[in-house]
Amino acid sequence: MTYSSFFENAVARLKDERRYRVFADLERSVGCFPRATWHGPDGISEVIIWCSNDYLGMGHHPQVIEAMAECARRMGTGAGGTRNISGTSHPIVELERELADLHGKQAALVFTSGYVSNQTGISTIARLIPDCLILSDALNHNSMIEGIRQAGCEKQVFRHNDLGHLEQLLAAAGRERNKLIVFESVYSMDGDIAPIAAICDLAERYRAMTYIDEVHAVGMYGPRGAGIAERDGMMHRLDVIEGTLGKAFGVMGGYITGDAVLIDAVRSHAAGFIFTTALPPAIASAAVTSIRHLKGSSLERSAQQRQAARTKRVLALAGLPVMDSQTHIVPVLVGDAEKCKAASDRLLRHHGIYIQPINYPTVPRGAERLRITPGPAHSDVMIDDLAAGLLEVWLALDLPLKAWAAAAE
Amino acid sequence: MTYSSFFENAVARLKDERRYRVFADLERSVGCFPRATWHGPDGISEVIIWCSNDYLGMGHHPQVIEAMAECARRMGTGAGGTRNISGTSHPIVELERELADLHGKQAALVFTSGYVSNQTGISTIARLIPDCLILSDALNHNSMIEGIRQAGCEKQVFRHNDLGHLEQLLAAAGRERNKLIVFESVYSMDGDIAPIAAICDLAERYRAMTYIDEVHAVGMYGPRGAGIAERDGMMHRLDVIEGTLGKAFGVMGGYITGDAVLIDAVRSHAAGFIFTTALPPAIASAAVTSIRHLKGSSLERSAQQRQAARTKRVLALAGLPVMDSQTHIVPVLVGDAEKCKAASDRLLRHHGIYIQPINYPTVPRGAERLRITPGPAHSDVMIDDLAAGLLEVWLALDLPLKAWAAAAE
Ligand SMILES: Cc1ncc(COP(=O)(O)O)c(C=O)c1O
Ligand SMILES: Cc1ncc(COP(=O)(O)O)c(C=O)c1O
Repeated sequence: MTYSSFFENAVARLKDERRYRVFADLERSVGCFPRATWHGPDGISEVIIWCSNDYLGMGHHPQVIEAMAECARRMGTGAGGTRNISGTSHPIVELERELADLHGKQAALVFTSGYVSNQTGISTIARLIPDCLILSDALNHNSMIEGIRQAGCEKQVFRHNDLGHLEQLLAAAGRERNKLIVFESVYSMDGDIAPIAAICDLAERYRAMTYIDEVHAVGMYGPRGAGIAERDGMMHRLDVIEGTLGKAFGVMGGYITGDAVLIDAVRSHAAGFIFTTALPPAIASAAVTSIRHLKGSSLERSAQQRQAARTKRVLALAGLPVMDSQTHIVPVLVGDAEKCKAASDRLLRHHGIYIQPINYPTVPRGAERLRITPGPAHSDVMIDDLAAGLLEVWLALDLPLKAWAAAAE
Repeated sequence: MTYSSFFENAVARLKDERRYRVFADLERSVGCFPRATWHGPDGISEVIIWCSNDYLGMGHHPQVIEAMAECARRMGTGAGGTRNISGTSHPIVELERELADLHGKQAALVFTSGYVSNQTGISTIARLIPDCLILSDALNHNSMIEGIRQAGCEKQVFRHNDLGHLEQLLAAAGRERNKLIVFESVYSMDGDIAPIAAICDLAERYRAMTYIDEVHAVGMYGPRGAGIAERDGMMHRLDVIEGTLGKAFGVMGGYITGDAVLIDAVRSHAAGFIFTTALPPAIASAAVTSIRHLKGSSLERSAQQRQAARTKRVLALAGLPVMDSQTHIVPVLVGDAEKCKAASDRLLRHHGIYIQPINYPTVPRGAERLRITPGPAHSDVMIDDLAAGLLEVWLALDLPLKAWAAAAE
């Protein structure tokens, strides 16, 4: 066996299982979003993006763009060092203040991504707590799972959003044992929401710390866009609130917020924070502008909610298997990896509609789906075209439609 | 004990050990670098940065800045998704082509940072190789150590740049056992260089794969700036070449390059790549511009080498304990954590010279140092001022000077 055969086999296995991914090469254009240019195998064509996590289109907001361009012109394109070694730029300091204020916390710490903030944030916090037991929601994101693994402490998984199961584990561990509950507010593949207040009640009763990932909620929920915990009035009861700058805020980067001493301890001990080049000032500056805008404006949030609700309604009326979702995320069930990929391909090629298939391991086998994320820039006509496109694909691929199934009974 | 007491104690321990770090809040200005504005405790003042890893000042290059600003205006500030879910922008595709070409490899894969490229790159590669034994240089960077740990396979550490020790471990493992040698080209705290050709000889003789980190060499060595392996004519003999876009290229991000099938396997299996928002197109575009510029221009490289050599000469003549270095990095030994911090503070406050102290755990205890990185923008006068400032600080803090020691003998 040569080394390359190991890599060949690994790729071949994915292809056999229909899990091999091909990335669509897209060029978004400011002013045209959600329209984009697709560099496909047969040349260039125009598509409409229906699966972006630039949920509110803030990455194309003129003020956010101008903040990035202006700061790049003024301060250059990179940070030039780790945070400790010449990489702490004034815009990053400002960004951390802005984030602390957003979540009503004493302090914030910025990382290069939401992924890194979870991975190095959770592992560092857990390692600083003697004999820590981590209680983790079964559907937590890979970045949280990696953070928990890296922590090297004991972990127990509670069934997704299952308060009874969580309480059982907390009670079994006892009040004395140090415990960290790790969960998300919005679960991005199903679009359901955690019962934050009840989890906080349990945490208090059993003396546990709480760590919440609001990656798919920041910018989009709460009067100032701080997330579901803000909407529910629960921010002050959560010990650590984590978020990303790369989705609704439209830029890149991640962060945690919490008590000053906790943030200082993480700042001082987290290898994945200490030993890496800081975010460029131009990124920080764009993020500050985006956060400030969304603190003061609910226009984008309400337009998103309106278009998401309309999309759910129109697709359901067309008989498409729209899965239950309490949020802006609209999952449509396919339930088969190959058909999911085929549906996505056909949407792209025949209808100029771009929605990536979501297959295992991102979702369980049998739960393969198209995950649609309507935003404020999707017009009513686009939604109607989406429904028509999906319907044609569903018929062409012989996928089940709800209304027809009902009519046939 | 409350939870916050754990974090308080952790921070207090660092303070006791004089390892608590305070970040200097700096504003670099395009056109003025290496001058910058320091937001200090007593207000704002001007300083000269002597420890930037924007080694060639490319982060302030007008074309690189314009590429970022132009692309932000055209395509927005963020990627809007993971690489698979709507985040593969055309500039990232171009960037990967550019990097593969730079290193003479079939393919490249871009990550959010050099840290992540090592952490997730090494762990993914090693996991795809059955029963892999990792042989790791004793001074490898934290990101490589984390990648090795995450791989979960057996690891053996060879003494820094010690070919005899490496061969011993290779021989003991035998030709049949799968082995991955992980090392750096330029070690950034001492500025010494790995014997790449001899390591490649050993790898061939004992059938090992090689993974090299060129983070502190890309842009700066070799006729096209591909690093030490290019300078030594060794690129084709290395299986994986890893680098950063955040240091000499002046932007942000990291990458690996290698055979197409290896890159495809990593692309398809690396969690730290798959589950995170992609680099913004504006970052990718700035990086492409910077790489292309340094492929064609050796001006910056030779100016850097000239000013680094001059700095070493002038500091040594002044009797300062300049440590041996084969590269652009100029370490000056202090040998005590507290004095190192005091020297840095005094340089900043009294001389407007900004050089962070490098203390344990970045370097071993007793090897605390000031790490100086002269660049093409540091003038001869600045170098002379640096020597004068250091000399004053050395005298004020009663640190040993070489010439004086010699004269006293
Ligand atoms: C729940 C959750 N947390 C964290 C992340 C990572 O955030 P980022 O994309 O900023 O790395 C993601 C997805 O990208 C996510 O879905
Ligand atoms: C040898 C080495 N590898 C990797 C990294 C990480 O690169 P980046 O700063 O792009 O995360 C660093 C330092 O930052 C380094 O010194």
